[in-house]
Amino acid sequence: MISTGEEVLHGDITDTNAAWLSRVLFEHGFSMTRRTTVGDQLDMLAKEIEHCSLTADVVIVNGGLGPTTDDLTAQAAAVAADVGLELSEHWVEEMKAKYAKLSRVMPETNIKQAMLPEGAELLDNPVGTACGFAMHINRAWVFFTPGVPSEFKVMTHGQILPRLAQNYDDVQAKDCHRLYTFGLSESGIGQTLQALKLPEGYELGYRSSLPFIEVKIFCPRGHQEAAHIRQQVITLLGDNIVSFGQPLLEEVADKLVKTDYRLTVCEQMTGGFLVNWLHYSEAVQPRLNHAWVLGEHNIDEQQEPLAAVLAMATAAQENQTHDRQGGSRLILASGTLNEGQVAVALSTPAGTWAQLITTKRRYASRDFRYVVSTVMLDMLRRWLSGKEVIGQYESLQRVGDIYIPANEG
Amino acid sequence: MISTGEEVLHGDITDTNAAWLSRVLFEHGFSMTRRTTVGDQLDMLAKEIEHCSLTADVVIVNGGLGPTTDDLTAQAAAVAADVGLELSEHWVEEMKAKYAKLSRVMPETNIKQAMLPEGAELLDNPVGTACGFAMHINRAWVFFTPGVPSEFKVMTHGQILPRLAQNYDDVQAKDCHRLYTFGLSESGIGQTLQALKLPEGYELGYRSSLPFIEVKIFCPRGHQEAAHIRQQVITLLGDNIVSFGQPLLEEVADKLVKTDYRLTVCEQMTGGFLVNWLHYSEAVQPRLNHAWVLGEHNIDEQQEPLAAVLAMATAAQENQTHDRQGGSRLILASGTLNEGQVAVALSTPAGTWAQLITTKRRYASRDFRYVVSTVMLDMLRRWLSGKEVIGQYESLQRVGDIYIPANEG
Repeated sequence: MISTGEEVLHGDITDTNAAWLSRVLFEHGFSMTRRTTVGDQLDMLAKEIEHCSLTADVVIVNGGLGPTTDDLTAQAAAVAADVGLELSEHWVEEMKAKYAKLSRVMPETNIKQAMLPEGAELLDNPVGTACGFAMHINRAWVFFTPGVPSEFKVMTHGQILPRLAQNYDDVQAKDCHRLYTFGLSESGIGQTLQALKLPEGYELGYRSSLPFIEVKIFCPRGHQEAAHIRQQVITLLGDNIVSFGQPLLEEVADKLVKTDYRLTVCEQMTGGFLVNWLHYSEAVQPRLNHAWVLGEHNIDEQQEPLAAVLAMATAAQENQTHDRQGGSRLILASGTLNEGQVAVALSTPAGTWAQLITTKRRYASRDFRYVVSTVMLDMLRRWLSGKEVIGQYESLQRVGDIYIPANEG
Repeated sequence: MISTGEEVLHGDITDTNAAWLSRVLFEHGFSMTRRTTVGDQLDMLAKEIEHCSLTADVVIVNGGLGPTTDDLTAQAAAVAADVGLELSEHWVEEMKAKYAKLSRVMPETNIKQAMLPEGAELLDNPVGTACGFAMHINRAWVFFTPGVPSEFKVMTHGQILPRLAQNYDDVQAKDCHRLYTFGLSESGIGQTLQALKLPEGYELGYRSSLPFIEVKIFCPRGHQEAAHIRQQVITLLGDNIVSFGQPLLEEVADKLVKTDYRLTVCEQMTGGFLVNWLHYSEAVQPRLNHAWVLGEHNIDEQQEPLAAVLAMATAAQENQTHDRQGGSRLILASGTLNEGQVAVALSTPAGTWAQLITTKRRYASRDFRYVVSTVMLDMLRRWLSGKEVIGQYESLQRVGDIYIPANEG
């Protein structure tokens, strides 16, 4: 893959297209071997296209198809292929139609976007004015695509992948099963999963994105054995798997909307991290009852953190004033008196669970609030799934825990 | 630059080293022209080093210096330079000393990290066991660096930049003045700043990171004229400049800690985004008095958003129960009854300001909460700076506003 553009080269824009393409190609059975970024210089770009066309089977060039003077990809392609540029009347008509739909006249500058290297095959762009094109240069099949991510993705799925699938019909597309874990280390997971006997064509991948590690099982598309392997991974990693195919928040949301529970959040320690996170789910938002974030001084300094958090949860359970819409109440609370020890609690109609935890490693403040918020959300997931509310997290140390049944509270 | 590693190539890890290096090199007067990522394959990597060594003056190779078998960079360098590997006794002693400090014995596998291409110059790594090295291959000076970002940065500053500065003494390092704007579009800023007459060696750069656009003024290091140009930019962009050289939150934090004000946040609309954001500043945290995030149903549906937010702010101002530590109180509040119109308020001892806004473009829910939180924080910045509290934001539409002096409230 060749990415173009000064802003990408200089790191002002993160090249999300590259990571996305790499993943999509892999899932379709192709493997990206090399990725290059060059700026908006005609000779550099032309040389890069030529260089890649001598070594790769397929080259995907991204960016530089816009109407402005620093968009030089079509010209560079012509140089690399040693051909001229010619006007695609067809694309001019397409662009005029796109502008007409918006009741506007196409600016003259857009004509440039219809100038393609001689002999190039036009690739339709249903969502923009930059058409793509494909051509054979030296040993490679080279595809030229627009830089706007939405346009790039539509073109990859609609134009490029079908052509690759047709031409390389022996390449086997892959399925990817994703499991999200919390509380384990990547090396720990790797060691545990060594016990697996993977069938041919299977591969494991990991992606660490604090505080989760995503385990990916790649297998030939539609393979029967996959469900069996997936179940073995689930058995080996136990209930550190917090969600399947989707992040923890969506997993909790799916379970929560099947109940009539409403959620209250008290975040003395996590400082709004959890309630902000919960707002990312449109399904959870209407279930949020009330949330508050206390300043440090609002926790009773005479109490132990565990007792203080229990008091917070109890107070929230008893405070009905803001709870007009009814429904049973769930409370998640976090509190700390010093940075090291953190108490978290889940209060339900069946009783209240609280635990006191410390970390084994040193986290930045934001990361630590993320980890603690994850423990809270995981307690809720466990309770909604009928599992033990207090989990085992290898990366955290549990100093104490307590359960108070509702009738004793 | 050549980055190595399957995880970077496949997008499982974002290559932050590349963006960072590009920026740092630019500030030192060097310009990155090409960046390539290859996986952990010996032949691919060796070919890439060779290819770059024939075209560039300086090549920086990042990653693949670890102790494991898929770390192949030293071997690839040797292949590219057509030399053998030899043991650096010096680095073995260094590594042994590092382990001894931790009361541990160096594992045998680490010996690999002291195997360098013949004739390479060792680059010290004071913060890890992977030493770097430099060598001349074909026309290029090639530097090999560890992939761990903290180690890479230390080595770049301590070893590579001094060597480059000494060798290319005609290259002029640059200063970079950063200004953060809010409420303007990148094209709008570009047009406004066309009025500037930039002296030779000056350059403007933009970096858009929603909801801010960072304006960068690059100029020759220590240039007197810079302050004058910077002032012109400030005049042209007016009070859409929310901070200088640091993000808005730090700017507000600097002003807030010079007062004895404490801050209360009521986030019906922003859903905890603001209080979570405020927690990113260690200086602001102890100034947070109380914060709450209401569920949708907690705002009085009979009221207009502006009236409802004023009521929230007033209630917060009157509610002294959680305010044990004294100090004057500032309140920031947000509320909405439908997704389109949002009311925000700042209440101070001098009076209360509120405004009702809508957006001109469609934002994702998270982005919109970020934009509204930024308006709130900017109101606070303006008040703390003695400016008009209600700002003009080109990208937002103000539907109404109100000011209620304290003695009338």
